[in-house]
Amino acid sequence: MRLIHHVDELRAALADAREAAFVPTMGNLHEGHIGLVDIARRHGGPVVVSIFVNPLQFGAGEDFERYPRTLAADCARLEAAGADIVFAPDVDQMYPEPQTFTVLPPLADQLCGAHRPGHFQGVATVVLKLFNMVRPRYAVFGKKDYQQFFLLDGMVRQFNLPIVMLAGETTRATDGLALSSRNGYLAPDERAEAPRLYRLLRAAAGRLAAGERDFTGIESETATALTARGWRVDYVSIRARATLLAPTGDSRELVVLAAAHLGATRLLDNIEVDTPAP
Amino acid sequence: MRLIHHVDELRAALADAREAAFVPTMGNLHEGHIGLVDIARRHGGPVVVSIFVNPLQFGAGEDFERYPRTLAADCARLEAAGADIVFAPDVDQMYPEPQTFTVLPPLADQLCGAHRPGHFQGVATVVLKLFNMVRPRYAVFGKKDYQQFFLLDGMVRQFNLPIVMLAGETTRATDGLALSSRNGYLAPDERAEAPRLYRLLRAAAGRLAAGERDFTGIESETATALTARGWRVDYVSIRARATLLAPTGDSRELVVLAAAHLGATRLLDNIEVDTPAP
Repeated sequence: MRLIHHVDELRAALADAREAAFVPTMGNLHEGHIGLVDIARRHGGPVVVSIFVNPLQFGAGEDFERYPRTLAADCARLEAAGADIVFAPDVDQMYPEPQTFTVLPPLADQLCGAHRPGHFQGVATVVLKLFNMVRPRYAVFGKKDYQQFFLLDGMVRQFNLPIVMLAGETTRATDGLALSSRNGYLAPDERAEAPRLYRLLRAAAGRLAAGERDFTGIESETATALTARGWRVDYVSIRARATLLAPTGDSRELVVLAAAHLGATRLLDNIEVDTPAP
Repeated sequence: MRLIHHVDELRAALADAREAAFVPTMGNLHEGHIGLVDIARRHGGPVVVSIFVNPLQFGAGEDFERYPRTLAADCARLEAAGADIVFAPDVDQMYPEPQTFTVLPPLADQLCGAHRPGHFQGVATVVLKLFNMVRPRYAVFGKKDYQQFFLLDGMVRQFNLPIVMLAGETTRATDGLALSSRNGYLAPDERAEAPRLYRLLRAAAGRLAAGERDFTGIESETATALTARGWRVDYVSIRARATLLAPTGDSRELVVLAAAHLGATRLLDNIEVDTPAP
């Protein structure tokens, strides 16, 4: 496995690669990321993993500074997982000049976008840059960041990038908590409380699967149950999977998404659910 | 020479091309475009020319509908000029779904951007799409659309596209008028008046080359001279070539840009000028 820090060296290493499979990450890797690497290995090669904490997608007061940087441990895990290239640029490699060109995605004021202004613009921009450096045939992202996957999939399609997007299912701890680099921020009592998010999403999904269509009621009851346990809820939202907009009368393929803060830590989760025909 | 209308066929034709040279156009080709094809041929191959009148870069009330479509004549010229592939997609090929992802360029409120809201966003977006379809090694644009070249060059750099941008000098009629597809809109008396734009820009550039630094004075006198002859001036502006912003005290490499309407036709021109050290 090669560790590469510079764009020119990366391009040279991949000059003849036509089937590269790419997993962009911010590092601090856990089993969820390794699952994405496994998907990449099954589809193409070489397997390229990028590790870059992208300042463009963090807002003022967010956790850019304290986001964990664990390159040596990450490389050890990736080597064991069978990655071929780790691309770990510094900020000057990615942004040698102020980034005045950006990708403007839709749904920027929806869900996480409503609570993190500019976040998805920053995500889409850095991913486009990374795609143009790596030029992969396959790219793998986790479904835990559901809106992110939805948007990047749309970006690939609408910008005509010749990339096959692959989604990895969310990896969970045995108690159901979605694995996330940010789980490391949780104090022990918070960690014990954290799986409630997924439990409540499953309960909401169960009601939808049973045919309930009172979306607003289910959303507000779920949010209230979190608030009662000390969570600060950004949103609980039921959306149509095809559009990530509110379901219409005949939407059957839904997803329940939530973002909520437990102490100083913001947690995300979601669950897809197919609902019965009327 | 192959005429291709579909993206899939284009990708197949270019699957093994590593040195393609690309000239994006809106068709209605003139000698200026052929000069760009010549540049493309000298740098790489196959030479790919796209012909697409991009609705995304036209504002309400602009000339999208009446913009001349002359595909058969264009193909004849391109075959004679040695192009290998003409890519002429229809709107559904380029935009099979509403384009909700766009490229947001800087300087969008400057120069032509101030008078054509959304224009450069539309240009950058369609050019990024075309780049991702053609995947050229070289791309050629004319300097007559100076701000466009400046922006696309910045987009390639900031989005890390592995493309070498090549600029073609403006081709002019013997009386100095910059060749443009829109010149065909001019009535005979307007065509006789039109070269004044370039003459006045040359006069302004001459004053700068002689050491004058009263940029505002030169701009307003040039604009007044046009207005006096019946032009409706969008802008006459002296800018630093490195930034396309107003020159600072030590800017030496300048460009004088203008856009003005003669009757119903909007004409653009510019001239680069190096100014003496103080």
